[in-house]
Formats: sequence, structure tokens, C-alpha cells
Amino acid sequence: MNESASGNSGAAPAAGPTEPRSAIVIGTGMIGTSVALALRECGRPVWLHDRDAESVRLAAGLGAGSPLLADGAPAGPVDIAVLAVPPGAIAAELRAAQERNLARCYTDVASVKELPLRQARDLGCDLRSYVPGHPLSGRERSGPAAARADLFLGRPWVICPLAENDADAIVLVTGLSAACRAQPVQISVTEHDQWVALVSHAPHVVAAAMAARLEQAAPGALGLAGQGLRDTTRVAAGNPGMWLQILTGNAGPTSQVLRAVAADLQHAATALDQVGAGDEQAVKELAELLDRGSAGVARIPGKRGGPARDFAIVQVIIPDRPGELARLFQAADEAGINIEDVGIEHSPGLPVGVAELSVKPDAVAQLSAALAAGGWPVRR
Amino acid sequence: MNESASGNSGAAPAAGPTEPRSAIVIGTGMIGTSVALALRECGRPVWLHDRDAESVRLAAGLGAGSPLLADGAPAGPVDIAVLAVPPGAIAAELRAAQERNLARCYTDVASVKELPLRQARDLGCDLRSYVPGHPLSGRERSGPAAARADLFLGRPWVICPLAENDADAIVLVTGLSAACRAQPVQISVTEHDQWVALVSHAPHVVAAAMAARLEQAAPGALGLAGQGLRDTTRVAAGNPGMWLQILTGNAGPTSQVLRAVAADLQHAATALDQVGAGDEQAVKELAELLDRGSAGVARIPGKRGGPARDFAIVQVIIPDRPGELARLFQAADEAGINIEDVGIEHSPGLPVGVAELSVKPDAVAQLSAALAAGGWPVRR
Repeated sequence: MNESASGNSGAAPAAGPTEPRSAIVIGTGMIGTSVALALRECGRPVWLHDRDAESVRLAAGLGAGSPLLADGAPAGPVDIAVLAVPPGAIAAELRAAQERNLARCYTDVASVKELPLRQARDLGCDLRSYVPGHPLSGRERSGPAAARADLFLGRPWVICPLAENDADAIVLVTGLSAACRAQPVQISVTEHDQWVALVSHAPHVVAAAMAARLEQAAPGALGLAGQGLRDTTRVAAGNPGMWLQILTGNAGPTSQVLRAVAADLQHAATALDQVGAGDEQAVKELAELLDRGSAGVARIPGKRGGPARDFAIVQVIIPDRPGELARLFQAADEAGINIEDVGIEHSPGLPVGVAELSVKPDAVAQLSAALAAGGWPVRR
Repeated sequence: MNESASGNSGAAPAAGPTEPRSAIVIGTGMIGTSVALALRECGRPVWLHDRDAESVRLAAGLGAGSPLLADGAPAGPVDIAVLAVPPGAIAAELRAAQERNLARCYTDVASVKELPLRQARDLGCDLRSYVPGHPLSGRERSGPAAARADLFLGRPWVICPLAENDADAIVLVTGLSAACRAQPVQISVTEHDQWVALVSHAPHVVAAAMAARLEQAAPGALGLAGQGLRDTTRVAAGNPGMWLQILTGNAGPTSQVLRAVAADLQHAATALDQVGAGDEQAVKELAELLDRGSAGVARIPGKRGGPARDFAIVQVIIPDRPGELARLFQAADEAGINIEDVGIEHSPGLPVGVAELSVKPDAVAQLSAALAAGGWPVRR
């Protein structure tokens, strides 16, 4: 092995029984580089490859591993090769990697799963060693500079075992998710594509369709926008080129969800037109849609994986200047209270903001008292 | 005047030339009580009325003013009566208040404007003294307990002068917005209803229609949800009964926006179906929708009223225990850096979280160095 200073220096510690002892990451974007960084934090040797040599240099510079060069390749097959390339490029990369016998097993990280599997079958790839995967980082950036070793910490990592898979390959991919400190979730490729269409791909198009209405809006209208509009449309700001690949790669399941949403919106529009004519049935239909929406939101797990409403919120008015937040958290700390989350709302053109502190409900009174004693205007 | 201890005690300081010197608030929900609290902070006497006596008692207990009782009424007309009741109830309350000559001028705070104005005309209200208004608090809660004196601080307050209005009435309503430290925005009732349909009412229905798809989803699918889905659907959790009133009160403009969004989603679904058949034109249409969505989001002003991308983000891994945030902000403070915003992402089942600190771009290097020196794992 010929290892660069930025990469795989030192002896690798013994891996757990299921964790891959060595890896090649093909595609050093945000996801691929993050996987590599996580493996490097476990002390595993990692080799990096990308069509873009500059991207490999950057990832290696971040400590994600060594460039996979003719004179710097592993002596034999590594335990796992991670294909972190766009969905449409996975099958060809898999075929090429298998022909070179780069690894004992292979996985990918794409957010669609049926398309690359179909293409891998068509190309005659060996499906005994390829286990499709999808770590859900929830991070909406791209490129190696956005990578983080802890990107997958506590997040779901979908693994889709195939009937053709060797048991060892499934174990190694599961071990990869463990090395990245993610939570493995085993489902079929069909389930995966339907589920992400519902919770990610269709919502992206819905946000884009709503945001598209703002393109020609009067500037004054946008001045009335509040947090609700910002949140509803936020994801539509994401990289349109990347999303086009994701959506066309998961066209069928996404289309199905979008048709249902479009039909509900069409019905809502018709109901609103009839409301003006005093139609009671129309009001009822509209009420039903709002109730279903409210029930749907209530089913989304919160950040901690449980219901999102576990915490009470204490509001504090804070001057917008250095040191104020430090003083605030110091006061909470001295009162022995853990602040679980914090949001800050600034007021345009004014030198104050409102901090919303999330705490356990039984800590509200104590925190309010501590902050009030420190001179902050507090409201529950 | 007979003033209760919880309310209008002490002599009122002289008001600015345009600020109302006294007020009656009819409807002590979150908005009405917040207006009353803001006026009380300016030292103005305020009388409170609501069909729900318990709500008045609670608002008075918060210091929002005195109950408007037979034996506790102002000696003569107050400067302004604020009708903080649901849209469909405004005209009748206005008529009744004008018959009792409660105030020199009248305004309301409803989020739809054409409906109450039409009803006020139909009831024969005096339109010289009624200036329709709508403060946009951006707060999605209800009831007097959710009220805050600073609710409108820096927020837009729409004022819709009518051809029939006395100039004095417009001045007083503008003064009310100033007393609440809001930013007055003068537009017509028609513009108002179209603008809020676009930036608030239609987005609410769109979020509800997307969230309604989650009602019957597999629990595992919801386990794959990320921040994108939470944000896209969040507003749909809001009070369905209140939203039904808002939407039916602004049916025409909202319906128009929803039809356009539904059509775009229908087209997107059709394009996705054709993508599977290799249709290049379909891919182009989908790309155009994503581009328009991205352009639309870019037009929404940020929290400070400017573009939302002024700040750089520094990420820090923090143990989930008391005192860690205090230490973090203390270190930032000692380095002389103002943290503009902060978000905390917890990892399910793990004892660490990631804090995202927003700072001015030129402070990134200094903050990163200060935090690294303090022992925190930092990434830009």
C-alpha cells in the first residue's frame, strides 16, 4: 500500500466483526466524502476516486483518504466499494469496478433504487456482491467541502437486500452504516422508491410549484410573506439540476403522489369557488382537506424521532449585540436547565430579536424565573 | 373613568400627534390582546370586550386593559376601536359599535379585507370612520395567553384607506400601527386579498394537500422524513377551524392561485410519466418548473427583510447536556463575535447534537478558531 500523508497513515485498528476493514469511495461529492470521513474516523484505510480530479484532491485534503491512483492502489480487493455517483451512472461504475475486482462487496448511496438496479441487471453486473443502499443525510448541500464525518449520525440508512445477495455482502453494508453511526433500515427497492417519493421527491415538486407562483408576484406581496411561506417553499431553492436527476430517476412513484396532490388542490379550488355561492357541501369538503392535512403533519416524527411537541417554549426578548446569547445561556445553565432547541427571530431594522427556547415542560417556570431575575423580558 | 387595578392605572402620557390616546379592543384573542398590550406599554388606557368573559378576564390579568363593563366604560368615545373578531363578525360589531358611538375611528385586524368591507356596506355602516387593517404577526397561535406586546414589532401592518374615509381616521389607524411598532403598508382591499392569497392562504392549502398524503402512509415511510418534509408541511398543523374561516373569506383569490399550482403539478406528473418513455421535452418542462420554483424562493425576503443568504454557517458538535450552549456562546462572545442565528439538530437516541451558528462571513475564520481552541469539533 502506498498511502498519502493526507490519507491512510498509521495502522488501522481492528474493525468490529461486521465493519468493513477497508474501502474505496467512487464519487467524492458531499455524500461520498462524508462516508469516507466517517470511515477514516474509525481508522479504516479509504481510497478515493472521482472523474473530477480536483474534487478528489479536495476530499483527500479534508482527510477523507488517498487518491486511488495506479501507483497508490490497495494491494488486493478492499472490503467495500461505495458508488457515490448519480443514479444513472451507478450500473456502469459497478460493472467497471467488478471487472477490476476492486472490492468484496459494493453498495451505492443514491436516493432512487429501482433505476440503478434495473440498469445493473441489464449490464450483467454480479448481483451477489451489490447491495443497494441509501443513507438519508437530510442535508441539502453538495460537493466535498460540505461533507461531514457525522453526516449520518443517528439518521436512517436504507439497505435493500436482493434475492441474489451473498449474506456476507449484506453484513458488510450493514457494517458500513454502523461505522457511519447511522440506523440501518432494511426494505425492498420498491418500498424505498415509493416511500421517498412520498416524503421527499413529491414534496420537493409541490414546494417548487408553489414557489413558482412567486416568480411574477408584485414585490409588495412578497413583503407580506411570513415564516409560513418561507418554510413551505424552502426546499425548492435546492439545486434544480440534481433534483431533475432524482425526479426523473423516480418518475413513476413521484408522479402518482403528485397526481393525488393536484387532484386535492383542484377540488379545493372548485370548493372555494362554490363557497362564494353559499354551498355548504363545499365548505365541508374544504374542512376535510384541512383536517387530513393536520392529521398528516401530526404523523411526522420530530427531530428526536418522537412526536415533535415534547417541549415547551419560553420566549425572551434579546438585544441584537454580542454577548447577549452567551449571558442568556449562562443564566439558563446556572439555573440547571438544559435548553433543547433555540430559534431566533430578528425584527427588520430593529435592534432586538426574540429568542424561543425549547425546554422540558417542567422547567418552564424555573427558566422564566431565572431569566426574569436576570433582567430579560420573558413570556411563555 | 373607572379603571381596574389590572388595567388603566395612572395618568396616560401625552401621545405622539398621530397615536391614539385611548382604545377599545373588541375580541381578546391573540391579536386583539397583543394590540391592547402594545397600547398599554405606551401608557394608553384600553378597554377590553369579548363574547367570552373568561377571555377578557385572562387578557385583563395579563395587563392588557380593563373589562368594558356598564360601570367601567370610558366617559366618552375613545380614539380608536379595534375589532379583533373573525372576518364574518366584523360588520355586525362595527355597526353595533358605531351605534353606541364607542370611538372616533374603527379598524379591524382580519386577514381578509373585501368580505368584511362588503358586509359593512350592506349593513349601512359609516365608512368615514372605518379603515380596514391587517397586522401580519406571522405567529401561528391563538388565544390571549399567546399574546405579546411586541407581536407586531417590525412587521408589516396593512392599512386599506377607503374613498369614503375621513383623513383623521386614516391618521389614527396609522398611529395605532406606530404604537405597536409595526411598519404601515397602504394598499387597496383588492390588492391585500390577492397578495395574502398568494403568500399565505394558498400556501396553507398546498401544505395541507401535501400533508394529507401522509395520513395513510406506512409508518416506515415517515421514518425516512427529513427537515424538508417537516418544513414543507408545517403550517398545515395550524388550527383547521380558523383556517377554514380565512380561506372561505378569501375564496376567489385563493382559488385562482390553487388552480395554477394544481395545473403545474398535473403537468409535472404527466411529464414524469413521459420521462419513463424517454421524452426529452418532458424533462425540459420539469426542469423549467424547478427553475421557476428556485427563482420564486429567491424573491422571498429573509427574516431581516433582505436576502436570506447574508450569513455564513459554522457547524459545531455539542454534547446534549446543560451548560454546553452557554460555554459555546461564551466562547463566541469572548472572541467578539455576534451570532446572528442558531439552529440545533438533535440526533435521535444519541447524546450529541449539531449547532449551526449563523455569523457574518468575515467572522467565520475567527469563530472557527475560537471554538476549535475551546475543544469543539467545528466545520464550516
